[in-house]
Amino acid sequence: MEYRRIKDQDDPIVKEDDIESKSLLLDVPVDKTTKTQWRMKTIVTLALTVLTSSQAILIVWSKRAGRYEYSVTTANFLVEALKCFMSLVTLYWTWQTDGHTDDNRLSTTVDEVSVYPIPAALYLVKNLLQYYIFAYVDAPGYQILKNLNIISTGVLYRIILKRKLSEIQWAAFILLCAGCTTAQLNPSSDHVLQTPFLGWMMAIVMALLSGFAGVYTEAIIKKRPTRNINVQNFWLYVFGMVFNVIAILVQDFDAVVNKGFFHGYSAITFLMIFNHAASGIAVSMVMKYADNIVKVYSTSVAMILTAVVSVFLFNFHLSLAFFLGSTVVSVSIYLHSIGKLQR
Amino acid sequence: MEYRRIKDQDDPIVKEDDIESKSLLLDVPVDKTTKTQWRMKTIVTLALTVLTSSQAILIVWSKRAGRYEYSVTTANFLVEALKCFMSLVTLYWTWQTDGHTDDNRLSTTVDEVSVYPIPAALYLVKNLLQYYIFAYVDAPGYQILKNLNIISTGVLYRIILKRKLSEIQWAAFILLCAGCTTAQLNPSSDHVLQTPFLGWMMAIVMALLSGFAGVYTEAIIKKRPTRNINVQNFWLYVFGMVFNVIAILVQDFDAVVNKGFFHGYSAITFLMIFNHAASGIAVSMVMKYADNIVKVYSTSVAMILTAVVSVFLFNFHLSLAFFLGSTVVSVSIYLHSIGKLQR
Repeated sequence: MEYRRIKDQDDPIVKEDDIESKSLLLDVPVDKTTKTQWRMKTIVTLALTVLTSSQAILIVWSKRAGRYEYSVTTANFLVEALKCFMSLVTLYWTWQTDGHTDDNRLSTTVDEVSVYPIPAALYLVKNLLQYYIFAYVDAPGYQILKNLNIISTGVLYRIILKRKLSEIQWAAFILLCAGCTTAQLNPSSDHVLQTPFLGWMMAIVMALLSGFAGVYTEAIIKKRPTRNINVQNFWLYVFGMVFNVIAILVQDFDAVVNKGFFHGYSAITFLMIFNHAASGIAVSMVMKYADNIVKVYSTSVAMILTAVVSVFLFNFHLSLAFFLGSTVVSVSIYLHSIGKLQR
Repeated sequence: MEYRRIKDQDDPIVKEDDIESKSLLLDVPVDKTTKTQWRMKTIVTLALTVLTSSQAILIVWSKRAGRYEYSVTTANFLVEALKCFMSLVTLYWTWQTDGHTDDNRLSTTVDEVSVYPIPAALYLVKNLLQYYIFAYVDAPGYQILKNLNIISTGVLYRIILKRKLSEIQWAAFILLCAGCTTAQLNPSSDHVLQTPFLGWMMAIVMALLSGFAGVYTEAIIKKRPTRNINVQNFWLYVFGMVFNVIAILVQDFDAVVNKGFFHGYSAITFLMIFNHAASGIAVSMVMKYADNIVKVYSTSVAMILTAVVSVFLFNFHLSLAFFLGSTVVSVSIYLHSIGKLQR
């Protein structure tokens, strides 16, 4: 009964995730492209998980070293510039091996490129809002509220990309949000319940902006599946650079003029920039070969990995809340995967 | 694929829970007995939930009133005696309306009654152990560890009663345990992680004893489905009284001899005894018309209800952990119910 219901709801369009199981059901050999896609999906997801958790560890490290006085906007600009450069290098390598094709040429049309500034613009607005939300919540409270991103991504993924999640997968998604928040609980977390109405509204708007930017990026990248991902990334990051220049002008103009662009930078800052650039590219890859849902699960697992690694690196103590939250996140991942099988 | 797998695993024996859906599938009218059973199941589950939460509220109330100096073993004995009396009164009423039958006669055989002392004996051992575990954990820590009962009940339900839960229902059960524990988190909960090995072992043994007693009671009550529940209860509670006399002798003999049986009793103590007796009977009814899994869900919902009601009664503040835990418990209940449909 339940099975039939899920089947009836099923999207008539073949989804990437289903290709492998569909091929098995129809008893035709899984073709090479699908296998490659599956391998790519696994590799990029693992890469994103590892990079995101090492990113968090670098942040803890840099805070412990007491070096956090550089301007964040200049670092963000450098991340975008580095990603742009890395895309170009990879693209150059592709041209050398495969030659120039319609899919890997850098030149573009206004029609193709016109949507590329949108994610970068959304992130800019979100980052600017971030400065104002701290009038209503403290930093640990903001970490808790950021988990609203999980829900907003799921909802916008459903609405904008029109891709369906099964009932079990929705339940798993709510659990993922609750589990991540539980794992981050600390004795002062209850302060977040005193957040005034305007603070809640800002947090929700920021979650929607961030979710929308992610889902929109996926829509752009998936719109032309044969298009080389490095070309798509190049254009995304070009606009990322442009919007980060605006952020520098708005937020850190005085600091950059008076103290210089690289003021407060250290070796660890450059390491963080490098890491952010690599994880940024991993996010794009996940959008290309998997989707936003995989991205959210990947970063949640990274959060748990970070805490476990920090026990060894920084003598962190894991709380009971962390164990409970991690259990809920693990069950959520399991439910997400069995929810998929039932389609 | 998944549907077929679950179907293949399915027990060939028709389970109570499935009767209604099976009847619908076979397109035969749901007979009157099944409808009555379904209604009984709902009523006793709701009764258990309400009685358990009011029980917790009475405990808070009595603690606030500073009256908690009576000996717990004498109160437990009175609870058993009251349940015995209530069973007899209901039985007398049944005899007046339906007359004496083979199923409602009080007389029993050694063969039937020989297993009835087992649950009461298990509870006695568990209650005696409870005095020793406080050498290793504090009271709030013990509250946290008591959630192990949920897991032990699920495991023993599977092993002893040989009734299967679907994969989703198992996931839901783990979530129920994690959710209940999360909802009870407080700033000092992390102490429980420092519990020494022996404390953990005792907590696990106590959870197993409590789970085994619950599952064994269900097995006894369900063994002869047509037998009147009040007769079954009468014999269970007779042995409950016997084993509580042992508990009085072991733990409170001096206090009872020197200060009297009713020393420290107040109106609220009698109210609590009455409430405990009523919830005890509700537990038996749930065992008869539903099962241990329903009992565990019912008492978990009661825990959440208690906290919400306490906000109004005692000006309790709900923590963020409580909201997260309640969300996980709610999703768990949803998953348990959709997991059932798929059989």
